[in-house]
Amino acid sequence: MAPARTLDIPVTGIEARLQSRTNAWDAPTCGIALGYLQANLIVLPSRYAKDFAILCARNPVPCPLLAWSEKPGDFSSFVSHVPGVPNSKIACGIDIRTDAPRYNVYIGGKPTEQGITSIEEQWDDADHVAFLIGCSYSFENALTLAGLTPPHVLHGRNVPMYRTNIPLSPAGVFTASTYVVSMRMYKVSEVQTVRDVTRPYITTHGEPIAWGWDGMKALGLDSVCKPDWGDAPVTADGSEVVRWIEEAKADGSVPVFWGCGVTPQEAVMRAEIPGVVMGHAPGYMVVLDVKEEDVLSKHA
Amino acid sequence: MAPARTLDIPVTGIEARLQSRTNAWDAPTCGIALGYLQANLIVLPSRYAKDFAILCARNPVPCPLLAWSEKPGDFSSFVSHVPGVPNSKIACGIDIRTDAPRYNVYIGGKPTEQGITSIEEQWDDADHVAFLIGCSYSFENALTLAGLTPPHVLHGRNVPMYRTNIPLSPAGVFTASTYVVSMRMYKVSEVQTVRDVTRPYITTHGEPIAWGWDGMKALGLDSVCKPDWGDAPVTADGSEVVRWIEEAKADGSVPVFWGCGVTPQEAVMRAEIPGVVMGHAPGYMVVLDVKEEDVLSKHA
Repeated sequence: MAPARTLDIPVTGIEARLQSRTNAWDAPTCGIALGYLQANLIVLPSRYAKDFAILCARNPVPCPLLAWSEKPGDFSSFVSHVPGVPNSKIACGIDIRTDAPRYNVYIGGKPTEQGITSIEEQWDDADHVAFLIGCSYSFENALTLAGLTPPHVLHGRNVPMYRTNIPLSPAGVFTASTYVVSMRMYKVSEVQTVRDVTRPYITTHGEPIAWGWDGMKALGLDSVCKPDWGDAPVTADGSEVVRWIEEAKADGSVPVFWGCGVTPQEAVMRAEIPGVVMGHAPGYMVVLDVKEEDVLSKHA
Repeated sequence: MAPARTLDIPVTGIEARLQSRTNAWDAPTCGIALGYLQANLIVLPSRYAKDFAILCARNPVPCPLLAWSEKPGDFSSFVSHVPGVPNSKIACGIDIRTDAPRYNVYIGGKPTEQGITSIEEQWDDADHVAFLIGCSYSFENALTLAGLTPPHVLHGRNVPMYRTNIPLSPAGVFTASTYVVSMRMYKVSEVQTVRDVTRPYITTHGEPIAWGWDGMKALGLDSVCKPDWGDAPVTADGSEVVRWIEEAKADGSVPVFWGCGVTPQEAVMRAEIPGVVMGHAPGYMVVLDVKEEDVLSKHA
């Protein structure tokens, strides 16, 4: 038998980007380069860039804009939108066309290519604008360090995500969209601590937007059993929530909901804008040079 | 008969503040110092200041934070939260205890004094923190210049405001609050222009969050006839909407809703925080040195 391939797990943002560029790293980025910010990627034709930037400014909880292309077609220079973080600190030497492990491509709101390792061919040097948007991995690390490891992390699953009825504040062509939320189950007695731990992570969704069974209903959800994205939630013993929801209620566990970085992708898809739109493949994020401590709210 | 008192109408922010300080100006500030930003005022005990700043950061459409006290108890130095506007440009020489024409005072969420001309006695030099929050007067000027004068301006009435069911993203003690919206009626054919004209005013609520009769329902409102604050809407001929709502529908007029600066006051009242909370009296705003063109979004 051939020896198992050994792979150096990236410990910094630049290592993650360079390994993604050469396809040496071709896996989800959860758990790599701990302490470095990971980002959602959206690439749009330039004529929609202003509306999208305003959409993010108006909806910072689900759409926390970290940085965007310095000019249309520029795949390596980014303007920082994080107070106190200079442009040079976003991602040194980045090539946004290759430095996420995998990408998806959409035309007119419909997926045309999924999980490709480069968008060099699709990138328009005269027109495409890339946006980097905060991701919840950062506050998940903080929860784990506080002894509140999210259940899906404990069980190596994807976080469950749901479409809600909470409207985004519209911006230009981006209308009629709603919040997408991610969900983590906690004991009622833990909710206040969970809120306090995640509150400072303003640029990566911050504290929850709703919690408890009434909170779930207020989002327009009847159940947490069937997420729209990701895996169904699990209990502490690893069984799926579908089978134990009544026990969880008896046990005092409740769902806790955060704004989710899938929201801006949904907004772009719903707008059905013409032209080529691209993003990272879910879970295969862009790792930045920005460190978690750089973005912690000075207010919290 | 005594001659009518002649009053110089303030034409700059500093004139408005100095006349308010001496009670030479003791009227609503609508229409004075045109081109200068007017601001909602909220004063809180310092222990709630961080949560409130995060509430604003998470809900910038209804709660656009312009500036806040440099330190607890400081009534004259403000830190700017408007990109590109330095602290020194907010309000030169301001004394926030006297420079709004009128104030309201609340204790434990209940009003104790209304319409007083100074809060020097109530202000705690060791503890109070003042927040200045964007106001829609700016985009109303822009609408008027575009030939789309809001109906309430045309008829010298107060804008109608409504409590909605759209939740704010909570922050610390500020939970379970919802958007308050202001409403202006326009023809369906005018809505896109109205959106385009107000979109750049990001720090003063920006473009509408909903429009049309379906948009009204999506906010949880059954009717626009009975606002929770302000005056009932009027038609172009000055009659109240209550009497002509069916005609308005037949005529193609629809309600257009914006995030409203009453939202943060509602959030503070609902939190029922102990201690002395203060604000401007509705309509009697703080006029700043910041000019409208200083806050127009660079994205729009």
